[in-house]
Amino acid sequence: MWRVLTVMNQLIAVIGGDARYLELIRQLQLLPNKTIILVGFDKIEQGFTGLTQMDIHELDASSLDVVILPITGTDGHGNVETVFTDQTIVLPKQWFQQLKKSALIFTGITNEYLTTATKEANVTLIPLLDRDDVAIYNSIPTAEGTLLMAIEHTDYTIHSSRVIVVGFGRVGDTVANKFSALGAKVSVSASHIKDLARITERGLTAIPLNQLHEYTKNCDILINTIPAPVIKRNSIQQLPSHSIIIDLASKPGGTDFAFAKQRGIKAILSKSLPGVVAPKTAGKILADVIKQLI
Amino acid sequence: MWRVLTVMNQLIAVIGGDARYLELIRQLQLLPNKTIILVGFDKIEQGFTGLTQMDIHELDASSLDVVILPITGTDGHGNVETVFTDQTIVLPKQWFQQLKKSALIFTGITNEYLTTATKEANVTLIPLLDRDDVAIYNSIPTAEGTLLMAIEHTDYTIHSSRVIVVGFGRVGDTVANKFSALGAKVSVSASHIKDLARITERGLTAIPLNQLHEYTKNCDILINTIPAPVIKRNSIQQLPSHSIIIDLASKPGGTDFAFAKQRGIKAILSKSLPGVVAPKTAGKILADVIKQLI
Repeated sequence: MWRVLTVMNQLIAVIGGDARYLELIRQLQLLPNKTIILVGFDKIEQGFTGLTQMDIHELDASSLDVVILPITGTDGHGNVETVFTDQTIVLPKQWFQQLKKSALIFTGITNEYLTTATKEANVTLIPLLDRDDVAIYNSIPTAEGTLLMAIEHTDYTIHSSRVIVVGFGRVGDTVANKFSALGAKVSVSASHIKDLARITERGLTAIPLNQLHEYTKNCDILINTIPAPVIKRNSIQQLPSHSIIIDLASKPGGTDFAFAKQRGIKAILSKSLPGVVAPKTAGKILADVIKQLI
Repeated sequence: MWRVLTVMNQLIAVIGGDARYLELIRQLQLLPNKTIILVGFDKIEQGFTGLTQMDIHELDASSLDVVILPITGTDGHGNVETVFTDQTIVLPKQWFQQLKKSALIFTGITNEYLTTATKEANVTLIPLLDRDDVAIYNSIPTAEGTLLMAIEHTDYTIHSSRVIVVGFGRVGDTVANKFSALGAKVSVSASHIKDLARITERGLTAIPLNQLHEYTKNCDILINTIPAPVIKRNSIQQLPSHSIIIDLASKPGGTDFAFAKQRGIKAILSKSLPGVVAPKTAGKILADVIKQLI
């Protein structure tokens, strides 16, 4: 009547990462039947009890079930960005080929190098920030970071300010919602007719993207979320001199920064806000998804 | 059929003040039939065109219709706090006695000295921050400044955080509203049965003030708005170690700061937030009320 269960112990390597990863590691520690190896965390102030720290060359890639790379993944040459070590970590393409075929590789974003390296090694790459759930959860600290920037960089309140959010994707939707909740007069600019309908349903002002420049003269805070050159000269030209542009799109943003500077309009390309304003929450978001997938 | 109107020209002296007063002065300039004299603004970068700058000893007090003092009024010896001058400005009690009996004296707050000086001179003193309208309008930048502090000083999002606001007056009401709008789980602690009913009606959790210590173990952000020692040892004792106390009550606040420090809980006594986070809005708030009264 009794069956012997052979519980497989999963081996997880966390290779590099920033403040978010401290919470991520803390959450992974709570899982049963996992062994966690940390690479690139030798400088953290409070160590993790019960976890193994290793240098990358000590790590046996063929033994790993799960590899967790930083949000930035690798650069074009396999270099891994680290915050908590002075050592250089490089993952050459051959490294990936030593992995088990069943191995799962988590990263935030991917690039040509990482995509090719994992494809050639026939292992599964999971770029977390491509996932709708992660992007939506992450949009919360992003929006709070945007509020922070708007409060810090203006001498007027968000309440009663005229805000235009450009883009109504996973980030634009949340940002519009938060500013509106604080009493700003929010308009949202988008291309799709479906988005314009939803924006109107929310009680916000819908602006077709190709008409944006006709509305910017009545704008105190212009927030871009579209990773394409959408905040152009004609829109910036009309902005009041006290206004501010906050660009949340990934580098290089969607704003004509040179023209904004020439006109004396403050324009800020934000860094990745979740890791800055709420590393603990951002780490938990990643952990919750990884836990479901491993 | 034609009547000759003798338009009286009102003489307004702005004596000292901070960044808020630049917007206040700009707003007053828009009024017809006013002459504005600035005392204590000789260091401002962009001067005001058409306004007279004077030293305090050049000013003929008996000619003034309106005197606008800084938010802080005077200290106990008649010293006026200034930001935009290196000169010392003192208003002795005799100075007030030279004023017309019809003169209006605006200040933010008052004290024994200023109240007595104006009373003895039989002139009208208007402490703006005592007014409900000013306090409610000012609560908006105060609440936005509180959001800023909460975002800056924690590594988790406001969204989903467990927030307890202590006090449900003009500031507590607004602060609870803003944090709730951003998705925090907000409780409000108050004494009056009427306030507890209103808090419940808002969909927030009502905590009788004398039971506060029973709830603080489930609190990430504790915000005090009551200018009395209400955040006591027994409440601080129960707070989780990652929590933060933001005290908005005027100096010295309502928190046992010594005990919070001893327990390693971050506790911050905030400065006057409207002048810090939104001087332009705060100046306009003051101007709007002054314009109605003069």
